[in-house]
Amino acid sequence: MYEKIKAEVLAANLKLVDYGLVIFTWGNVSFYDRQAKVIAIKPSGVEYAAMQASDIVIVDLAGQVIEGELKPSSDLDTHLEIYRNFPKVNAVCHTHSKYATSFAQANRDIECLGTTHADYFFGPIKCTRKLTNVEIAGQYELNTGKVITETFQGNQLDIISCPAVLVANHGPFTVGTTVGGCVDNAKYLEEVAEMAINTYAIHPQASPAPTSLQDKHYYRKHGEGAYYGQGTTQG
Amino acid sequence: MYEKIKAEVLAANLKLVDYGLVIFTWGNVSFYDRQAKVIAIKPSGVEYAAMQASDIVIVDLAGQVIEGELKPSSDLDTHLEIYRNFPKVNAVCHTHSKYATSFAQANRDIECLGTTHADYFFGPIKCTRKLTNVEIAGQYELNTGKVITETFQGNQLDIISCPAVLVANHGPFTVGTTVGGCVDNAKYLEEVAEMAINTYAIHPQASPAPTSLQDKHYYRKHGEGAYYGQGTTQG
Amino acid sequence: MYEKIKAEVLAANLKLVDYGLVIFTWGNVSFYDRQAKVIAIKPSGVEYAAMQASDIVIVDLAGQVIEGELKPSSDLDTHLEIYRNFPKVNAVCHTHSKYATSFAQANRDIECLGTTHADYFFGPIKCTRKLTNVEIAGQYELNTGKVITETFQGNQLDIISCPAVLVANHGPFTVGTTVGGCVDNAKYLEEVAEMAINTYAIHPQASPAPTSLQDKHYYRKHGEGAYYGQGTTQG
Amino acid sequence: MYEKIKAEVLAANLKLVDYGLVIFTWGNVSFYDRQAKVIAIKPSGVEYAAMQASDIVIVDLAGQVIEGELKPSSDLDTHLEIYRNFPKVNAVCHTHSKYATSFAQANRDIECLGTTHADYFFGPIKCTRKLTNVEIAGQYELNTGKVITETFQGNQLDIISCPAVLVANHGPFTVGTTVGGCVDNAKYLEEVAEMAINTYAIHPQASPAPTSLQDKHYYRKHGEGAYYGQGTTQG
Repeated sequence: MYEKIKAEVLAANLKLVDYGLVIFTWGNVSFYDRQAKVIAIKPSGVEYAAMQASDIVIVDLAGQVIEGELKPSSDLDTHLEIYRNFPKVNAVCHTHSKYATSFAQANRDIECLGTTHADYFFGPIKCTRKLTNVEIAGQYELNTGKVITETFQGNQLDIISCPAVLVANHGPFTVGTTVGGCVDNAKYLEEVAEMAINTYAIHPQASPAPTSLQDKHYYRKHGEGAYYGQGTTQG
Repeated sequence: MYEKIKAEVLAANLKLVDYGLVIFTWGNVSFYDRQAKVIAIKPSGVEYAAMQASDIVIVDLAGQVIEGELKPSSDLDTHLEIYRNFPKVNAVCHTHSKYATSFAQANRDIECLGTTHADYFFGPIKCTRKLTNVEIAGQYELNTGKVITETFQGNQLDIISCPAVLVANHGPFTVGTTVGGCVDNAKYLEEVAEMAINTYAIHPQASPAPTSLQDKHYYRKHGEGAYYGQGTTQG
Repeated sequence: MYEKIKAEVLAANLKLVDYGLVIFTWGNVSFYDRQAKVIAIKPSGVEYAAMQASDIVIVDLAGQVIEGELKPSSDLDTHLEIYRNFPKVNAVCHTHSKYATSFAQANRDIECLGTTHADYFFGPIKCTRKLTNVEIAGQYELNTGKVITETFQGNQLDIISCPAVLVANHGPFTVGTTVGGCVDNAKYLEEVAEMAINTYAIHPQASPAPTSLQDKHYYRKHGEGAYYGQGTTQG
Repeated sequence: MYEKIKAEVLAANLKLVDYGLVIFTWGNVSFYDRQAKVIAIKPSGVEYAAMQASDIVIVDLAGQVIEGELKPSSDLDTHLEIYRNFPKVNAVCHTHSKYATSFAQANRDIECLGTTHADYFFGPIKCTRKLTNVEIAGQYELNTGKVITETFQGNQLDIISCPAVLVANHGPFTVGTTVGGCVDNAKYLEEVAEMAINTYAIHPQASPAPTSLQDKHYYRKHGEGAYYGQGTTQG
């Protein structure tokens, strides 16, 4: 069963490799079929080159394996906590892509410095607070999902408008309404992060783009007044 | 109709991908056939891999679609404003290439630091002023063209001698007398921008190359006294 | 004789090229078959593209050639000294990979700034002290092995838990229990070094990840309580 | 005539492309056959993809064309001046490779920070003084050769031991005793320059490697006591 979403989740994981966002077994993508109430996720520690659709693990929202021979990604509980807290999110992607991870390691938000950022992410891409020792020693992956949730809800940010977050000293998570969308968001994030590092190299005190410009570009592509593209919305 | 210029504009847009200057749907190239009084431009939001010559949109200088099923690039009005103000410009290219965009995000000109720059661009590559909130809220793309025009005309700069400009907090536009030339200029710009970032990394107070050296290299390749190459001019 | 380990050592050396860690003749990998008491190592100064399994040199722990027409790597004595001092090390890899070498040239440890590092290396990756003029003028390659040994033993560090070291003003050495493992460690090291440079570019005073997080990630993948992957250990 | 050296010079120029050191028509390689008293050099402004062996131009030491339909590289006079002043140099290579050019634009020597540098270049790679306005306005390319000569002779440096120089605000020239050697030196230089930039990014006050280490590595590979490789000298 679940052949269609397994194939989609496999393709999304392989796209991470094509995009140059992961090497080895780093990174994972999942999809939540909210009607079937099942999540399809990459298995833990399996090389991308050898991965088959049948290796994709099907779990329920409590994390119980429904179908599959392999153990799900060790980051499963982070994905599940995001699905539980954000009803519009249907797909989650985690990578250790170089530039976004560097911001996470620096414990620094990625400010919106230009229109490339504003085209895809509304406002800054936040870095979470550090997890406490108690949170790390306890249910670490679950608590990672909780601190992600806190970062959006505590700042009254809409995860669909800014579908990316940096976990402090760890790396980025992106989300999407589709499985392809969350992977594309991981690529947009990495490009934006690289440009931000270069911008600060040129001008360490570079300030964010004017809010009016940020809004213009975001709403040129998203929402009711969007006029970019051919009238179909993007992932 | 217009098969020839559609094919050329398609090829020029695909060359941006080959040059590593664009990913996804970022970037666009147009060509203005001044005799036929028509502009051929990339459609909005179409992936490069799937793009056909028949997808290229033909418009007039007022932006009215003359031929084509798709919507033209959302940056069309910027291109048109450049064509209206600079009679020698026949082609316009816009990208979000990493290094040039980083200078745009830093709101900083690219000074001429060496002969690689001087071979293609006479003097510094200017960054525009920021658009005002009124300009952004109004006819944003048209006003982007106006601020580009102002940057050249206000500084009495010749756009053909320095065929590139950085729009503040946005990214680069390059121009050319031929459609291939404006795309090559986008690649030259990106190389020059990358070297400039590295030069400042080594020496933050690096100063421009001597004016005599800038002139020597520019005029070695351009104008009546040029002696570089085999006697044919470059795009 | 020794066809199997020659083939493995050849494959490991070629993997360095695939991973983008070496060009020309830079870098070398050896394997110590502790039961057969022989070491298989890359020949000195041979281009990777032309290298055959029969070019791999077999030596004993004293460095005497047992089989092979070519001279062993000029770094042989460094490898041997590591094997003599660290009984769990069965493979050694040396490269001049760009980012790790840059830390070696800066005489700076790579602090553990995030979980990518912690997943593979327990604690900071140390840079050795500089060799003295006497050590350099004497048995240089042997003394390089001695200063590597001193770096681990003097700091009471376990080389298997942190299987990488930077030789001051020279470059990285990595080790492994398997020949594939030491090459993978060279790639992990390079990724971690690149992210560390970028992290400092964003935040020059970036501090190490909390110890609790470092421990959590390291032990999630290594040792008795490991739960990452499918229950097999990684090289 | 001269088919052999034309083929070699063509191959050397194409190797620059393979090495990622040049794009478009940037860069040029020449070879001086000191017995035949002829120089073979790349033509000016010809794309690498279209270049044929028959396009390579044969000139004498005064720069007169002996064979070939095309104009020689506009940098010919720089090459000739090097050949006239350095009797051991048989090949010259010029590129605008990114990292070496960035040091040239910063008017800064590349200090020997580690053994990668010391393996190929004895001591720092010098940046020339700026040319004067008079030198630029006069026989510019010849004067570029003169300032290169002055940089070695004025500092009593041996060009064969350190076969690279940076022309201020311009870019690198490398030399060799063979045509393949000068191109390899251009690649070594670029790698060394990239590592130097990264080293300074980590540690802005990084100091050169100890002289004893520099000597050790240089003489391990070069001269009578060399013991690296299989007993043949490298280009």
